Amino acid sequence: MPNAAGDTIGEQYRATRALTQALLEPLSEADATLQSMEDASPAKWHLGHTNWFFETFLLRDHMPGYTLYNERWPFVFNSYYEAEGERIARFSRGMLSRPTVQQILGWRAQVDDAIEPMLDDPRFADLIALGIAHEQQHQELLLTDIKHALFQNPLGPAMLDHAGTIPAANAQDGWDAHPGGIALIGHPDDGPSSGFAYDNEGPRHRVLLEPFALSRRLVTNGQWQQFIDDGGYRTASLWLSDGWGWVQENAISAPLYWHGDQHFTHYGWQGRDSDAPVTHISYYEADAFATWADARLPTEFEWEAVARGQHADSAPAHDPAGGNQLGCLNHLIPEGRPGLFGDCWQFTRSAYLPYPRFRPAEGAIGEYNGKFMSGQFVLRGASCATARGHSRASYRNFFYPHQRWQFTGLRLAKDN
Amino acid sequence: MPNAAGDTIGEQYRATRALTQALLEPLSEADATLQSMEDASPAKWHLGHTNWFFETFLLRDHMPGYTLYNERWPFVFNSYYEAEGERIARFSRGMLSRPTVQQILGWRAQVDDAIEPMLDDPRFADLIALGIAHEQQHQELLLTDIKHALFQNPLGPAMLDHAGTIPAANAQDGWDAHPGGIALIGHPDDGPSSGFAYDNEGPRHRVLLEPFALSRRLVTNGQWQQFIDDGGYRTASLWLSDGWGWVQENAISAPLYWHGDQHFTHYGWQGRDSDAPVTHISYYEADAFATWADARLPTEFEWEAVARGQHADSAPAHDPAGGNQLGCLNHLIPEGRPGLFGDCWQFTRSAYLPYPRFRPAEGAIGEYNGKFMSGQFVLRGASCATARGHSRASYRNFFYPHQRWQFTGLRLAKDN
Amino acid sequence: MPNAAGDTIGEQYRATRALTQALLEPLSEADATLQSMEDASPAKWHLGHTNWFFETFLLRDHMPGYTLYNERWPFVFNSYYEAEGERIARFSRGMLSRPTVQQILGWRAQVDDAIEPMLDDPRFADLIALGIAHEQQHQELLLTDIKHALFQNPLGPAMLDHAGTIPAANAQDGWDAHPGGIALIGHPDDGPSSGFAYDNEGPRHRVLLEPFALSRRLVTNGQWQQFIDDGGYRTASLWLSDGWGWVQENAISAPLYWHGDQHFTHYGWQGRDSDAPVTHISYYEADAFATWADARLPTEFEWEAVARGQHADSAPAHDPAGGNQLGCLNHLIPEGRPGLFGDCWQFTRSAYLPYPRFRPAEGAIGEYNGKFMSGQFVLRGASCATARGHSRASYRNFFYPHQRWQFTGLRLAKDN
Amino acid sequence: MPNAAGDTIGEQYRATRALTQALLEPLSEADATLQSMEDASPAKWHLGHTNWFFETFLLRDHMPGYTLYNERWPFVFNSYYEAEGERIARFSRGMLSRPTVQQILGWRAQVDDAIEPMLDDPRFADLIALGIAHEQQHQELLLTDIKHALFQNPLGPAMLDHAGTIPAANAQDGWDAHPGGIALIGHPDDGPSSGFAYDNEGPRHRVLLEPFALSRRLVTNGQWQQFIDDGGYRTASLWLSDGWGWVQENAISAPLYWHGDQHFTHYGWQGRDSDAPVTHISYYEADAFATWADARLPTEFEWEAVARGQHADSAPAHDPAGGNQLGCLNHLIPEGRPGLFGDCWQFTRSAYLPYPRFRPAEGAIGEYNGKFMSGQFVLRGASCATARGHSRASYRNFFYPHQRWQFTGLRLAKDN
Ligand SMILES: [Fe+3]
Ligand SMILES: [Fe+3]
Ligand SMILES: [Fe+3]
Ligand SMILES: [Fe+3]
Repeated sequence: MPNAAGDTIGEQYRATRALTQALLEPLSEADATLQSMEDASPAKWHLGHTNWFFETFLLRDHMPGYTLYNERWPFVFNSYYEAEGERIARFSRGMLSRPTVQQILGWRAQVDDAIEPMLDDPRFADLIALGIAHEQQHQELLLTDIKHALFQNPLGPAMLDHAGTIPAANAQDGWDAHPGGIALIGHPDDGPSSGFAYDNEGPRHRVLLEPFALSRRLVTNGQWQQFIDDGGYRTASLWLSDGWGWVQENAISAPLYWHGDQHFTHYGWQGRDSDAPVTHISYYEADAFATWADARLPTEFEWEAVARGQHADSAPAHDPAGGNQLGCLNHLIPEGRPGLFGDCWQFTRSAYLPYPRFRPAEGAIGEYNGKFMSGQFVLRGASCATARGHSRASYRNFFYPHQRWQFTGLRLAKDN
Repeated sequence: MPNAAGDTIGEQYRATRALTQALLEPLSEADATLQSMEDASPAKWHLGHTNWFFETFLLRDHMPGYTLYNERWPFVFNSYYEAEGERIARFSRGMLSRPTVQQILGWRAQVDDAIEPMLDDPRFADLIALGIAHEQQHQELLLTDIKHALFQNPLGPAMLDHAGTIPAANAQDGWDAHPGGIALIGHPDDGPSSGFAYDNEGPRHRVLLEPFALSRRLVTNGQWQQFIDDGGYRTASLWLSDGWGWVQENAISAPLYWHGDQHFTHYGWQGRDSDAPVTHISYYEADAFATWADARLPTEFEWEAVARGQHADSAPAHDPAGGNQLGCLNHLIPEGRPGLFGDCWQFTRSAYLPYPRFRPAEGAIGEYNGKFMSGQFVLRGASCATARGHSRASYRNFFYPHQRWQFTGLRLAKDN
Repeated sequence: MPNAAGDTIGEQYRATRALTQALLEPLSEADATLQSMEDASPAKWHLGHTNWFFETFLLRDHMPGYTLYNERWPFVFNSYYEAEGERIARFSRGMLSRPTVQQILGWRAQVDDAIEPMLDDPRFADLIALGIAHEQQHQELLLTDIKHALFQNPLGPAMLDHAGTIPAANAQDGWDAHPGGIALIGHPDDGPSSGFAYDNEGPRHRVLLEPFALSRRLVTNGQWQQFIDDGGYRTASLWLSDGWGWVQENAISAPLYWHGDQHFTHYGWQGRDSDAPVTHISYYEADAFATWADARLPTEFEWEAVARGQHADSAPAHDPAGGNQLGCLNHLIPEGRPGLFGDCWQFTRSAYLPYPRFRPAEGAIGEYNGKFMSGQFVLRGASCATARGHSRASYRNFFYPHQRWQFTGLRLAKDN
Repeated sequence: MPNAAGDTIGEQYRATRALTQALLEPLSEADATLQSMEDASPAKWHLGHTNWFFETFLLRDHMPGYTLYNERWPFVFNSYYEAEGERIARFSRGMLSRPTVQQILGWRAQVDDAIEPMLDDPRFADLIALGIAHEQQHQELLLTDIKHALFQNPLGPAMLDHAGTIPAANAQDGWDAHPGGIALIGHPDDGPSSGFAYDNEGPRHRVLLEPFALSRRLVTNGQWQQFIDDGGYRTASLWLSDGWGWVQENAISAPLYWHGDQHFTHYGWQGRDSDAPVTHISYYEADAFATWADARLPTEFEWEAVARGQHADSAPAHDPAGGNQLGCLNHLIPEGRPGLFGDCWQFTRSAYLPYPRFRPAEGAIGEYNGKFMSGQFVLRGASCATARGHSRASYRNFFYPHQRWQFTGLRLAKDN
C-alpha cells in the first residue's frame, strides 16, 4: 500500500518514526515533560504513546514470543483505550519525569527492530498504516501541546529559532460556487487501492446539497482585528448562547496567543502578519465571526464536495498534499497558501456524528473514533502542523466548541 | 389562525392561560418557590415569565400607552433574552419568595384584560401564537421542574393524588420500514394556513435517506431492567466516551427517579410498570442502550419522515394530537400509547443545528432558538407533560446529552 | 434554676418557644422555606430543628412510652449530630416545602404538651436549660439566615415594617485600661447556682495577661467608610494572606449588605447611620481594619476580663443583659449602646480551641461544641439578634474567618 | 554571629548554599521542574527563589551599582511578597522548563561572588542570617516537594539509592512530667548573643501552664496501624467536624504515602518499620489519634517549656541540634531518635497566632510570618529533612490542618 508519493509502507514507517524523534530534538528533558492542561500531553508522552501503539497492537498481538520492553509502561502510555485496561489519570501525565527521553528512545529502537520484518508482510499492512496515521496525528498534537506549554512560561521561551519571515502567500479572494445536488461523501471502500482512512470517514454515502459558495481564502488576522475593533467580543447578539457564556466566564477578548500586536509561536513572541490566516480560535469565535460577517460556516459535506471538485465547474479538485503542512516548509505559522489544505484546520457547522451505516471496528482499535461522537464539531483540511501525506478530502478532525489550542481557523461559506 | 381543533386564537389563549394557572393549584406557596438546580425554575417563576412574555412583546411593544404592572419585575422574570437587558442570575430564581403567587395572578389578570381586544386582530396573530406556544412549553417545564424539586425532599411528597392505575396500553411490537429516498423535512411556509411553528423548524428542505426501520414501541422499563441486569452501566464499551465519564463521575446506575422497584412521580413514590416506557434517561444512556440492543437511535429526519407517513406504505401518518399528552388524561406517567406522539420525548442521533438557509427572526424574539445550536441533541415527539395541541411532526426539542429531568425516552431504529 | 430575671425554667421554656414562633409570623410559607447558602438554613427548618432537639433528647430519651410525632422527620431536622444517625444533606434543606409551617407548629404543640410535666423536675433541669439555650441560638441564626435569604431577592423585600428610626446611642469614646496579671477565665462550675453554660466555656482556669486597653465603643460605619476611602480594600499590606486572597477572589469592597450609602436590613434597604456600629464584616476585614487603625483585636481573655470587671479599677463589670439585644427593643440594627453586650458580636484574635482540661460531654450532646475546634475564631459579646438572657461573660461564639452573615463587628484593643 | 557549632556567618552561608545545590544533584532537569500541587514548588524553583532572596534583599537593596543578573527572573522567582510586585501564579511554577538548572546555577555563582565581601560586614549580619534561615527552610520544602512529585509517578521512581536499613532507634517509652506554673516562652531578644530567630518567635513572654506530661516517644507506625485496625478512620466521634468532612471527601484511610505494608520514600517504595515514628499525617488525623488514645496534643507552650527544661526536674533541656536531622545521617526517614528534635514535626493544639506585643518587621521582609496568622496550627521540633542547625526551642512551624506532605508526626500529651 504505497502512499500518494509512491513510498512503500516501510519507507513511510521509517520516515514517520524519524520525524517524531526529530520533533523532540529542540526540547530539553524538562520541556518534554511539561503538561499545561488536561487536553494536552507532554512531548515525551507522545513519544512513548505512539510506540506503545505499535508494541501493543503489532508486536504483542501478532508477533509470537515478543516480550514487552517494560511490563509497567503500558499503564503509563495507554491513552484512552478502555479495552486495554487501567491507565494513568490524564492530568498526571505531566508528572512523568521518568522514564527519560533517552529511555523511551531505547524502547522505540527495540520496537523498530522487532517490527522491521513485518513491514513487508501484507497481513499487517492495514494495522501498520493505522499506526503510522496514529503517529502522524500525535506529531501534530505534540507540536500544539508544547506550544501551549511554553506559552505558560512568563519568559516566553522559543522552541525553534526563527527560520526567517516568509511573506504570507496571499491566496486570492473570491468564492468557489457549487450548484448543489447529490454529492458522494466519505472515503471509498475499494480495497487497498483506495488508501488508508479511519473508520469514521465511511461508509461512503450520498448527501443532498443546496447551492452554496465557499471562500477561497481563510479569514485573516487583519479581518479578525476588524471584528475586535467593531466590538465583536462584547456583542452578545453575535454569539451562540454557550459561546457567550464562555466569553464572559473566561474574559475572552482575542484569539489564544494574541497579546497586543504580537502572538506566541514556536519561535517565541512574534509580530502578527495581518494578511496571514487567523488561528487558535474556538468554534464559538468562528461562528460569531461568521455571523458578524453576514456569512456562515460550511457544512463538512459542502467542504468535502468542493475539496473533491465534485459537480463544480469553477472548483477543481484540491491537492491534499498541498499548502503549508508539516514536512516541507517547517514553517509552523499559517501563511495563507491557496487550496483547501494546510495553514489551519477549518471549522464546519457539522457536529461530529456517525455516517449512515457506520460501525466501529472491532476490539480496542474500534475505540479510536466512534466513542467521541457527542458534543464535538468537525474540522476539515489540514494545518501547518499536520504531517504532509496525512491529509485527505474525507478526513474528519473534531474538537469541542471551546477548544482552540490547535491550529484552528475558518473559511466562510454562503448560500447561493 | 384556528388550530387543528378549530379553536380561535382567543379560545386558545384563554385555554392556555387557564391551564398554566390550574397547574399551580396543587402547589403551596413554598412548593411554587423551589428551584432544585440551575436547569430548573420555580413554578412561580414560570407563572410570571410566561406573563412577562405577553406583557413585553405584545403590550409594551404594541399597545400605545400601556403601563408596566411593575417596573422592576421584568428584571426578575426575563429568562435569557440578552436584547431585553439585565436579568436575575439563573440560580437565584429559587430565592423569589416574593412576589407571591397571588400577586403574580393579579399581574396575569391585568395582562389578560389588556390583551383581550388584540386577540382578534390579525396583525398580532403570529405574535400571540408564539406567546401561546411559549407558555405551553413552560407548562411542560413547570411540571418537570416541580417533579425534580419535590424529589429532593427526603419525605417524597406527592404533587397530585394518584388518579388510579391506568394499565399500560401495550403498543404493538414491530417496526415501520421506510425505503429511503428524498424526504421533505421541516415546517412548510405556506402562510397562515400552515399553522404555527418555531423558526428552527424551517426552512422546509429535502434530505436524502437510506432505507431504515423505526420501532413502533418505546423501550420499556422491563427492557431497561434487562440492560441493567446485563451490566449495562458497568460496561465501558457500550458508552460514548463523554457518557462513560458522566456515569463514573456521577455514579449513575439507573434512570433518574428510580429507586429499588419504585420510581418517583407526580403522585409520589410508585411501583414501576415494566410494560410502560422507560423515561428520564440521558442521551448517553439512550445511546448505550441502543448499542447494547444492537440497534441505533434514529436521525431526526428519519423520525419526521415516518411521522408524516412519507413514502412509507406500512407507515401511515401519525396523529400529532394523539397519545398520552397533557390535557386529556392528566396521567403524568408514560403508559405506552401507540403512535409517535406522547408518553416521552424521543432522542435522535441528530445534533441540534440549523437547517439549510435558516435565519433567526429579528429582534429579541429571534433569540428564541438559534442561539442554542451547539452541543445539544434533538428530541422528537411529545411527552405526557406536553400540552396537547402543541405537537407537530416538525417540532424540534433539544437538550444537552447529560440532561434527563424531562420525560425523555427512546425509540430504536435500524438500518435496512 | 431561675435565670437572672428570676424566671423559673418553665417560664423560660415557654417564653423561648413563644419567641421562636413569633419570629416566623411575618414570614410567608415561601419565605420560611428559603435557603440562600450552605451556611444558612430555612426559618422553617430552625422551627423544626429546635423542636427535634427537645423531642429527641428529652422526650424520646427520658419519657417512657413517648411516640415520635413523625418517624421520618428526625432525618430532616437533625443538624450535625453524627451519633443521631443519617440526616439530610445540608444544602438540601432549602427543598423542604413540606412539611408546612402549620404542620411543624402542630408538632411543637405536641412536644410542648408532653414536656410540660418535666419542666419542674430537677432531674431534667440541665437538659431543658440546654434545650432553651440551643433554641435561643437558633433564634439568632433564624434572623441572620432570613436576612441573607431576602437579600438575594433583587426586589429587596422587607421582613418587618420599620419601627421608626432610633437614633444611634452614641457610646462614649475612650478606652478601658487593664493592668494585666492573672485573670480567671471561663464559667465557674459551682453547681446550680452558677447558671447555665456550654461545655466549651469551661473549665474555669487562670490566664496571664499583659497590660492592655479595650475600646469603649464599637467601630462605626463612619470609621469604616474612612477605611474604604483610604484604599483599605486595595492595600495588600493591611491584610492577612488568606484575607487578601478572599478579597481578590470575591471582589470584596465593603461589608456585606452595603450598597452605595444604603444597607440591607430586616426592614429592607435603608440609609446607613454613620454613628452606628459597622456590622457584617469578616475576621479578615476586622483584622485589616485594626492594622490600618494601628491597633489590634483583643484576645478572648482580655475581653472576658474586662467584661467581668476583673482587676480593673476603671472598668466596672458589664451587664450581660444590657445593650441592644433581642427581646426588648426589637431593633434589629446595631445602634451603639454602651457596654460590651449587644449590637454586634466582637471578633477576638483568639482561635476557637479547648480550654485546659476541657472534656466534651458524653453522647450526642457532646457533639455540640468540641468538634468545631479547628480553623475558627472566637467572638464575644452579643448582638441585636441575640436573645436577651442568653448572654454571659464566658460565652464563646465562633465562626470561620471569611463568614460575615452574622451581626459581626469589632472593638479595638491596644497594648499598654 | 557564629552559630552553635561556632561557624562564622561566612562559613554558614557557604555551607548552606552548597547543601542546596547538593540536593539537586540526584535530580534530572525534568525532576527539578515538576510541581505536583499548588502547595508544592519545583526543586528548580527553590534553587532560584533562595537566590532571588539574596539578590533582592542584599545585593539590590544594599550593594550600590549592582545589576540584576536577569531583569525578568524576579517575576518568576518571587514567592508571595506583595511588596515586591507582581509574580508568577503559584500553580504555574511547574511550567518553568526554562531557565535550566544550569542557568540558575550560573546566577547563584554571580550572587555568591557579589555577596562574598558582605559576609564579614556586621551591618548585614542579620539580613544574611535571615537569608540562610530562609534557604534552610526551602531545603526542607525542596525535599518534601520532590517526594510528593515523584510519588505521583505510577512507576514510583526513587530520588536516592537506599543507604541501607538503619534500625529504628527505639526511643524509650515514658512521659516527661511538668509541674505547671509560669513559663518563659519565645526567643529572647538579647542582641547578637541570642542568635537568629524569626519575628514570630517573639517577643519573649510569660505563659501560665497547668501540670501536664509529654510523651518521650513519637507515635509509631505500629501504633497507627492499631488505630486503623480499630476503625479509626471510620469512627466519626473521634474526629473534628472539619476533619471528618476531609476524611469523607478525600476517602482518607491511612497516612499519605502508605500503600499496603509499604510507604513511598525518597528511596522509592519501602517496607514500613513498625517501630519508626508515623509521619505524613494531617492535624485532623493527629487529633483523632490522640482522642482515640485517650490523650491530647500538647500546646506549643507546653512543648517549648519541656524543650527548654524549664521547671522540670525530670526533663533536662533537649538538644536542638540532636536527633535525626538533615546533614548528618542523610537518612530521610523518621527512625525514632530520643529527644524532641528530629524525625518529625510535632503538631500542637495551638493555633498559629501572634505573641503578645508582636509586630511584624518593616518592609517586604515583614511579610515573612505575620500575614499567615489565620487558620493554621503550630508544629514544633524538627524533622529528618530539617537542616541541622536550623532548629530552636522557640521555632514555630505552621500548616493548615489538612496538609500532610511535610514530615509531620505527633507526640502525645496528657493532663496531670
Ligand atoms: Fe493516540
Ligand atoms: Fe421562556
Ligand atoms: Fe442546633
Ligand atoms: Fe521563601
